[in-house]
Amino acid sequence: MTETENIAYDVVVLGAGPVGENVADRTRAAGLSTAVVESELVGGECSYWACMPSKALLRPVIAQADARRLPGLSAAVQGPLDAAAVLARRDYFTSDWKDDGQVGWLESIGADLHRGHGRLSGERTVTVTGPDGVRKVLTARHAVAVCTGTRAVLPDLPGLDEVKPWTSREATSAKAAPGRLVVVGGGVVATEMATAWQALGSQVTLLVRGKGLLNRMEPFAGELVAEALTEAGVSVRTGTSVRSVTRENGTVVVVTDTGDRIEADEILFATGRAPRTDDIGLDTVDREPGSWLEVDDSLRVTGSDWLYAVGDVNHRALLTHQGKYQARIAGAAISARASGSAVQGDAWGAHAATADHDAVPQVVFTDPEAASVGLSLAEAEQAGHRVRAVDYDLASVSGAGLYGDGYRGRARMVVDMEREILLGVTFVGPGVGELIHSATIAVAGQVPISRLWHAVPSYPTISEVWLRLLEAYRDN
Amino acid sequence: MTETENIAYDVVVLGAGPVGENVADRTRAAGLSTAVVESELVGGECSYWACMPSKALLRPVIAQADARRLPGLSAAVQGPLDAAAVLARRDYFTSDWKDDGQVGWLESIGADLHRGHGRLSGERTVTVTGPDGVRKVLTARHAVAVCTGTRAVLPDLPGLDEVKPWTSREATSAKAAPGRLVVVGGGVVATEMATAWQALGSQVTLLVRGKGLLNRMEPFAGELVAEALTEAGVSVRTGTSVRSVTRENGTVVVVTDTGDRIEADEILFATGRAPRTDDIGLDTVDREPGSWLEVDDSLRVTGSDWLYAVGDVNHRALLTHQGKYQARIAGAAISARASGSAVQGDAWGAHAATADHDAVPQVVFTDPEAASVGLSLAEAEQAGHRVRAVDYDLASVSGAGLYGDGYRGRARMVVDMEREILLGVTFVGPGVGELIHSATIAVAGQVPISRLWHAVPSYPTISEVWLRLLEAYRDN
Repeated sequence: MTETENIAYDVVVLGAGPVGENVADRTRAAGLSTAVVESELVGGECSYWACMPSKALLRPVIAQADARRLPGLSAAVQGPLDAAAVLARRDYFTSDWKDDGQVGWLESIGADLHRGHGRLSGERTVTVTGPDGVRKVLTARHAVAVCTGTRAVLPDLPGLDEVKPWTSREATSAKAAPGRLVVVGGGVVATEMATAWQALGSQVTLLVRGKGLLNRMEPFAGELVAEALTEAGVSVRTGTSVRSVTRENGTVVVVTDTGDRIEADEILFATGRAPRTDDIGLDTVDREPGSWLEVDDSLRVTGSDWLYAVGDVNHRALLTHQGKYQARIAGAAISARASGSAVQGDAWGAHAATADHDAVPQVVFTDPEAASVGLSLAEAEQAGHRVRAVDYDLASVSGAGLYGDGYRGRARMVVDMEREILLGVTFVGPGVGELIHSATIAVAGQVPISRLWHAVPSYPTISEVWLRLLEAYRDN
Repeated sequence: MTETENIAYDVVVLGAGPVGENVADRTRAAGLSTAVVESELVGGECSYWACMPSKALLRPVIAQADARRLPGLSAAVQGPLDAAAVLARRDYFTSDWKDDGQVGWLESIGADLHRGHGRLSGERTVTVTGPDGVRKVLTARHAVAVCTGTRAVLPDLPGLDEVKPWTSREATSAKAAPGRLVVVGGGVVATEMATAWQALGSQVTLLVRGKGLLNRMEPFAGELVAEALTEAGVSVRTGTSVRSVTRENGTVVVVTDTGDRIEADEILFATGRAPRTDDIGLDTVDREPGSWLEVDDSLRVTGSDWLYAVGDVNHRALLTHQGKYQARIAGAAISARASGSAVQGDAWGAHAATADHDAVPQVVFTDPEAASVGLSLAEAEQAGHRVRAVDYDLASVSGAGLYGDGYRGRARMVVDMEREILLGVTFVGPGVGELIHSATIAVAGQVPISRLWHAVPSYPTISEVWLRLLEAYRDN
């Protein structure tokens, strides 16, 4: 008894997270009729269960840590945060998990929102099954952009469902701090959520399978963050896997591979992400359901002339800002191709997501903050570059010492010795979150070392580490 | 009965502030024998009476303001700062006004320190009169570098001596907060010291002759800072001059040009700087005592082949970091000329202080912070560039909203429409102090707008204002 409506568009976007929104923004700006299909909240993971709520939880933690490092202010902030107030502020930043604002924005750009589950159903076609069971068939004259993102991956442990473990969603939207929280994982979600909930009143145990934290960054990032988490009261256990998890009378019981038993009120698994491509009809267009979608630098799926995959789903860089960058480029590329204009697909062209390869930035909002852009030393060496790593102890920078007593941090730049440009930069320390964009411009801009000498850091800021890095490069 | 010793050096540096230290560092690194002459503390104004103590005073003020904008933390920090603790920390950062550490550093690089008053006494010659009256004549085979900086200028008001007014020196080194403090001036020293002492317990009145504050920056910088100072309790009176100042029974009495009478415990004049060149023997080398020394881009005094003037004294940019930049370049140029190597004097070359013209950065450590680099819109227009100013309200950036409730701030980039590069950038708002270096690299690196699109700001940082500025440039 379901009716089917057929609607033709220039572009159909699957997924209304920040990535889908930005694709639509660009195709609409080019005058292309655009449908956006979303089965959950418009605004996506980032707005409700990732960037926004996590940073809302972390910001007061970081500001408190900063204040504690300053005599004259520190005594006032020795007590715990007012968790209820922090959580209420978090609710504000997630709009109480309502998407009216973002729906209004989609309307304002003239995109059509179709609520429901969208599935590809053949070339240039998406079938949407609405919440009421009504089906609509959307056809796309020019492009379908898959922007469905990722979901958390849970490990394959027997009985895990009954434990009702947290993923990043529960960890960012919980209404109160659990008394005891076990966090499994050593990446960004794990370290950020361990930082937040420990400060909000939980006793956190962090179980990390590998040797260290944040292992996609330079090794000192994870080392400094682990040290600080431990000082904040988190029990950090590296080299530890989970053998079993059960819930007994409400209590979570974790047994590790070494036989240790840990009791907790909740357990968060931050153990990776999988693409949300398992139920979007990829089989109807000869692609493997559940796979990451490989794309070229215009974000078009390999071998297709109409299918794009933008954001997490293409596995190039699982970061909101990088997905938005891709979205701007994909939207522009779709529009250029639709109008028959030239596609500027050369490196750093308007239609090439070159930064995905060379200049992906990331800030981890722990205390200390860990921020990086481009390649780590190991990545640069592996890629076959002739490189030199230049390190500097951030604590020796005047601006860092002034920033807070007992400042600990470190900086590294990875220099391409052939071209004398930077391939990567990492800053770890309090107050470096806004500093990394200087490195992003240096790396993406391929600004030569000889010119960086003329980019004078203001005294006394933490930015003066740039001068110290250049001096260390010159003198050693 | 004074003895005279004659000592020959390759280079003689007059003044051991950060600028003199950096010149010596570079000439010593080149193997040139180097004398440094200092009549006060090694480390100079910056270490004892400017950058270091002022930032030590301001950092807790800023951290407190940040904390107050965060529910969950704000309640704890409503009370005043512990001024005694803040002042003690300031004393630590000035090494209690002792220079042993910096003397040790000069020794470590193998420069000879001559304490005493140094005066030029003819070509390539400096005569030092020591504290004991002993005179030494230092000759310089290659160069004399004048790095004597500036001193505060007091207005020509009758009886001012008896008032014992504060200058930047007393304002940064005072041992306690005066109950009532009048600050005269509207520049960096005035706004920073008004911010610091108001937070440390003084009732501050700021008297500004002109219409606004920070008038070398974009107009919105002074407007936002004035607004915040007022909210912090400072009485900001623009368009107001001082007609007379007296001290009556210990109380400072200021009468303004409008006839208002203001009583205070201390008065700070932050009304400009004059070069410390009045008593350094400039007459012996045919230069005007008390004048600013004009130099070329290698920092060599116009018309001389051996006399350099580096830092504030040449009036190019009265900022410690810019003086240090000049010092590195001057030291390298002196060394190159001494060894007969080629001087790389073209724009952005190793021996040209090109950034002095195009990319001088500055951070004002008020709350909000005000930071800029390069040309303001007015300066760019005056210089004859065809430009466009692009503005953005920082409060609309997610990362700024997360940074603190009630965030107020603004950003501007000035685009050179011929070359599509940036001539200047200004950020005003909490947390922008480390962000400005991104702009410094963009301006000094002359990174084209088309490439800046590939420098992706991390979400959700304040740095995302970069994306908003680019979008505003594209769409308007």
